[in-house]
Amino acid sequence: MAELIILKLGGSVITKKGEGKAEVNKEVLERLAAEISEARKEKEFPLMIVHGAGPFGHVPAKEYGLHEGLKDERQIEGFSITHHSMEKLNFLVVEALRKAGLNAMEFQPSSIGILRNEELVHFPTEALEGILNIGLIPVAYGDVLVDEKKGISILSGDHLVPYLAKKLNASRVIIVTDVAGIFDSNPKENKDAKLIPEINSGNIDSLNIGSSTSTDVTGGMQRKVRELMRLEIESEIISALEPGLVKKALLGERNLGTVIT
Amino acid sequence: MAELIILKLGGSVITKKGEGKAEVNKEVLERLAAEISEARKEKEFPLMIVHGAGPFGHVPAKEYGLHEGLKDERQIEGFSITHHSMEKLNFLVVEALRKAGLNAMEFQPSSIGILRNEELVHFPTEALEGILNIGLIPVAYGDVLVDEKKGISILSGDHLVPYLAKKLNASRVIIVTDVAGIFDSNPKENKDAKLIPEINSGNIDSLNIGSSTSTDVTGGMQRKVRELMRLEIESEIISALEPGLVKKALLGERNLGTVIT
Repeated sequence: MAELIILKLGGSVITKKGEGKAEVNKEVLERLAAEISEARKEKEFPLMIVHGAGPFGHVPAKEYGLHEGLKDERQIEGFSITHHSMEKLNFLVVEALRKAGLNAMEFQPSSIGILRNEELVHFPTEALEGILNIGLIPVAYGDVLVDEKKGISILSGDHLVPYLAKKLNASRVIIVTDVAGIFDSNPKENKDAKLIPEINSGNIDSLNIGSSTSTDVTGGMQRKVRELMRLEIESEIISALEPGLVKKALLGERNLGTVIT
Repeated sequence: MAELIILKLGGSVITKKGEGKAEVNKEVLERLAAEISEARKEKEFPLMIVHGAGPFGHVPAKEYGLHEGLKDERQIEGFSITHHSMEKLNFLVVEALRKAGLNAMEFQPSSIGILRNEELVHFPTEALEGILNIGLIPVAYGDVLVDEKKGISILSGDHLVPYLAKKLNASRVIIVTDVAGIFDSNPKENKDAKLIPEINSGNIDSLNIGSSTSTDVTGGMQRKVRELMRLEIESEIISALEPGLVKKALLGERNLGTVIT
């Protein structure tokens, strides 16, 4: 789908992740919704949003060991609880987008998707393409899914984004996090940490992303970056915390964080 | 799927339909949730629930003329609003089922389904079958969908139920409404109205269902009954308002309302 942008809003951005409670970060969410709305007023483009889970998903998923696959009956309850909690978060995100004037629409991954050993292997997108074609903004999320091998498993937003970007032939992927991009060491611990403006096949091996000094707070930054790179679709990791960046990125500005090519 | 029961909860049953406000009928919903929970404790069987819309869906769908297909941009807003409202109702229904101890799970039709002139033509069920197989209770609903011919259209719960019953090879369909079954005239207007205990291919033509004297409050009872009959799956229309009927029906009792064979 020409011109399609997939915008990932990190769980740490839209929720009060640090506090462990399942609460949205209303202030940031409303500002981001306003920026997206302003961008869409200036320019027409198909847009899909995928958001992370924060404590809405991570807390119950951990409590019931959903990452470990289906081992006992109690986890079915955990599946129900975790999905229900993600539905709530998704509803609140769509609510904020709607209030900003966007024709957003909840989009449930678990009603469609099947994993096999945590890899998405089935995700029919005919309805999704129809939804995008009429100008709605589908809003998907990290969710708990049926897994052909493990019984149940977690689909993270970071896994769903490159899968959909490829399948829908997106023009750009914009990943919004709580840091300014990827640094050469952890900027939360090291004042001298330097932002890496571009990661490509030439420098990725020397950068040691994913080491203990990386900036990633959810784990798996190495995998995340490599998955994006394999896509051969331009991606950029930018900060949610600097006002205006999301709007600029949606309107086509580059080099606002770390570009992955 | 052997033993699968599809339980349809009418919009007029779970919402305060008559009042026009988008509010659930908490009392009835909680009692039905308790009955379903009691039945599942006595007997294991795969169960799928589909609920109607009541004012949550009908009011915004009517306001934006969603039945007429996509004619102007404003209807995209109507699509977003109507789906958002149905998400809320679905969340509240699952919430009530969860509180009764059931491992229920929201199940969004519009992320999967495509209509063509209001007929469901695409609805992949691989993930749904996986969800049923691990013992979760998916809870779907009437929703607004992409329509290949009309742009957008409404999928009623009453259209989704026979489609899924056939595709998933259900053993029974139980339709829970606000009347005791199908009558020979409108029981709300006529004190002498008689319940028709069974409708089959032998008597359907003589019954004049769907006439102005029928009991149907949402329209289309004739189509509804014929669709169920074509299924060749045993169906029964029962009342939500008589306590205990839903539990009995789920546990295998027959002849509680109007049986369709």
